[in-house]
Amino acid sequence: MKIIDMNCDMGEGTGNDEAIMPFVSSANIACGFHAGNASTMNATVELAIKNGVAIGAHPSFHDIEGFGRREMMLSEKEIYEIVVYQVSALAGFVDIKGHKLHHVKPHGALYNMSAKDPDIAQAIVAAVKDLDPDLILYGLSGSALIKAGKCAGLRTCSEAFADRAYQNDGSLTSRTQPGAIISDFSKSFEQVMTMIGEQCVRTVSGDMISIEADTICIHGDHKDAEVLAKEMNKSLTAAGYLIKASKQHG
Amino acid sequence: MKIIDMNCDMGEGTGNDEAIMPFVSSANIACGFHAGNASTMNATVELAIKNGVAIGAHPSFHDIEGFGRREMMLSEKEIYEIVVYQVSALAGFVDIKGHKLHHVKPHGALYNMSAKDPDIAQAIVAAVKDLDPDLILYGLSGSALIKAGKCAGLRTCSEAFADRAYQNDGSLTSRTQPGAIISDFSKSFEQVMTMIGEQCVRTVSGDMISIEADTICIHGDHKDAEVLAKEMNKSLTAAGYLIKASKQHG
Amino acid sequence: MKIIDMNCDMGEGTGNDEAIMPFVSSANIACGFHAGNASTMNATVELAIKNGVAIGAHPSFHDIEGFGRREMMLSEKEIYEIVVYQVSALAGFVDIKGHKLHHVKPHGALYNMSAKDPDIAQAIVAAVKDLDPDLILYGLSGSALIKAGKCAGLRTCSEAFADRAYQNDGSLTSRTQPGAIISDFSKSFEQVMTMIGEQCVRTVSGDMISIEADTICIHGDHKDAEVLAKEMNKSLTAAGYLIKASKQHG
Amino acid sequence: MKIIDMNCDMGEGTGNDEAIMPFVSSANIACGFHAGNASTMNATVELAIKNGVAIGAHPSFHDIEGFGRREMMLSEKEIYEIVVYQVSALAGFVDIKGHKLHHVKPHGALYNMSAKDPDIAQAIVAAVKDLDPDLILYGLSGSALIKAGKCAGLRTCSEAFADRAYQNDGSLTSRTQPGAIISDFSKSFEQVMTMIGEQCVRTVSGDMISIEADTICIHGDHKDAEVLAKEMNKSLTAAGYLIKASKQHG
Repeated sequence: MKIIDMNCDMGEGTGNDEAIMPFVSSANIACGFHAGNASTMNATVELAIKNGVAIGAHPSFHDIEGFGRREMMLSEKEIYEIVVYQVSALAGFVDIKGHKLHHVKPHGALYNMSAKDPDIAQAIVAAVKDLDPDLILYGLSGSALIKAGKCAGLRTCSEAFADRAYQNDGSLTSRTQPGAIISDFSKSFEQVMTMIGEQCVRTVSGDMISIEADTICIHGDHKDAEVLAKEMNKSLTAAGYLIKASKQHG
Repeated sequence: MKIIDMNCDMGEGTGNDEAIMPFVSSANIACGFHAGNASTMNATVELAIKNGVAIGAHPSFHDIEGFGRREMMLSEKEIYEIVVYQVSALAGFVDIKGHKLHHVKPHGALYNMSAKDPDIAQAIVAAVKDLDPDLILYGLSGSALIKAGKCAGLRTCSEAFADRAYQNDGSLTSRTQPGAIISDFSKSFEQVMTMIGEQCVRTVSGDMISIEADTICIHGDHKDAEVLAKEMNKSLTAAGYLIKASKQHG
Repeated sequence: MKIIDMNCDMGEGTGNDEAIMPFVSSANIACGFHAGNASTMNATVELAIKNGVAIGAHPSFHDIEGFGRREMMLSEKEIYEIVVYQVSALAGFVDIKGHKLHHVKPHGALYNMSAKDPDIAQAIVAAVKDLDPDLILYGLSGSALIKAGKCAGLRTCSEAFADRAYQNDGSLTSRTQPGAIISDFSKSFEQVMTMIGEQCVRTVSGDMISIEADTICIHGDHKDAEVLAKEMNKSLTAAGYLIKASKQHG
Repeated sequence: MKIIDMNCDMGEGTGNDEAIMPFVSSANIACGFHAGNASTMNATVELAIKNGVAIGAHPSFHDIEGFGRREMMLSEKEIYEIVVYQVSALAGFVDIKGHKLHHVKPHGALYNMSAKDPDIAQAIVAAVKDLDPDLILYGLSGSALIKAGKCAGLRTCSEAFADRAYQNDGSLTSRTQPGAIISDFSKSFEQVMTMIGEQCVRTVSGDMISIEADTICIHGDHKDAEVLAKEMNKSLTAAGYLIKASKQHG
């Protein structure tokens, strides 16, 4: 049986978590630094458990105003510390319900910076590993973060995007460029099938490049997120895939 | 050997933690809601470990501006959730250093409200117990919090004050009343000796009332905190006491 | 020509401000303490100006997590200070666009507490008056806030609710009570017509009580807010009313 | 009569404002984004007025945890907006006491970035000018901020440092370099006299470069800040200078 993970950012107050949760297999839950708070974390953990969805922490720079999307120049020690803080806080809610935190996926600017900067990547990896070496590290496919995680012996989960066009170097085409967003579902699904079936993707220039694709990202704040999640889930299932957090505990 | 605990709030940016730490046996570390952040938590945990001091979480209402001293009307569910969040975040820093969180002491308005309101007390107790039933609950001697903790089977540590005058009902005399603060050290020490030696205290009206005194609070933000901590430690040691977190693990 | 004001809370990230703005005559803009930030304030001020809507500040307790809905025990001095801070910050954005701040309406718990507590009401009134005695004070009809404002010589605007059932003492029926919410539009409109036409309202017990109704509140976070705002605007206009901030400058 | 300004950051909770205020002529007051809040702003404005000290706003990135010292990547529009917000909020407290805001000096990372980046400098200048073209812009001598301010027709005040060694390009020697800090008071004073008397300064390499020095910065968080401020004030006065905000209103 072929397995693919579908993940979605949750507990951010920007989407309809209840409607999307049934169609994904892993949830990245905001930890209060860019969105969310103790109450939304508790409720979202509960919702994930109810739906059998693997629970991940979604740590960020502390920037409520900018939704964690603005780069902040922290030392590596500070990055290590904010990851420990946020992951531990979320793990508390998972633990008291008798479950176990499954993964960590950095958010926003921290995600993007750790994709490129090996030192930032290493700071995140150290925090995750020190907290629990069984945690799975989610990051951009081919990123410095995934490389640092593998190098440190962490299990990693490479994220690929259904609705974003790729560059020849494996990076995403900037949203400011024409054609950056793939809004046609059938094209999105085709891209996903190529990525998870053949581990490669056709770039904006028409070339085929190789890509690791362990998990497909669903954008929860998309206006049709609910429909897209359902459609992707249905289509992947029809194509013979089991939607499941690929390296789930147990 | 007689044992007494001396505790102090730390990581709040208001006192000289490094100077005081050697003279106390337990530290209540601010968790970012009224003071402190991931970096101060990490540093203060390290400092406590270096000094062999038992580490506690010092959760609060989320009120940086008011230093957690202003009452906030949260539901019991919300109180449970902010305690889980803060205690878990701090425990993360303790765990990664191979140590174990020792206790929880609520801060400021949360401390005072939980001393009087059984529902708020119960919310805190439930959070602490759900997180780790081995955690020790610190609270005002004779308070609703200590009662709820005992009732739930938690180990408790009743806090008594060296420098505050007591009322006949066991509550502290309001700071706005004359004689509320005992500024003479010899009188403070005498009060402590009566409290820990005879488990009673002379009130402002001259009556003797019984009191549980498992730990003596050192106010870290007092202008002479360092001297007072040292003096109290020395005097108690000279009186044959071992300064130690009374129910320390191991 | 008969005039009635329709007001709506804006810049809170909870509703579709652009869709609702054309149908109201005054906007209460969140100032960063319960929702919003410098960017949303700037954008919402701009949107209001574009639509010819009178601009008000919507100050709150500093409680992002609780959306300003949780009571906080601040001193009257502190309340005065947070009102000065927030109103001034918003006024800055209005001023730089060559317009003038029109009113102040407290938010959430601050609104409710100032409706009942004369000291809190007085603190808000003092801040508003000290900043600009031409500012109009919005508050619950019959509240301590409106009384304190009138007493201090401020112009006031008494807020009435289309979709909430009233008690005999003029207070709103708690949302936890059956019948508290009037969900049928024709009944809402009938209540509004009675309130603004006859300055009275039929209570849950069937009695008629007098009420001042200078402005009708539109709940922007209602799922049908846009439709309701449009419908109310249309119906009031059809009934011969001009929708306008009743005491608008100039 | 020769005039020189001495300025100090205030309302940051890091120094003894009451002790230093009598010896400076302008105060840069934290506006709640890196330190301070409505209450500290109100109190510090009052303290400045009592001492006849010119009042300035000290806006920052929104980063309480990092004390505004960490670079944040905001758009120029966002920078404009956070400056409008903070300056307006502080101006409110000054206005209600019948005084007028005198100047604006950016804090920490915003100060440093605006010293080098003309776009960031321009965003700050635009905000200050839009709010009140009479406001004086404080910034690092020779910086992009001062250049942009002059270019826009704002009055500027070039800041020079008594206790920091200069590079040949007019920038400050990084604190991580040896000799970056001038800890000997007589050397500090000599540097000040050269800067304000001859408008030049000897750099670490021994060269003389020209420098504009309209105001001398006193570091309020220095452990001997009070003594240094007093000493500098006394020495400058003895040398025939009047300590005064150089372009004070009136």
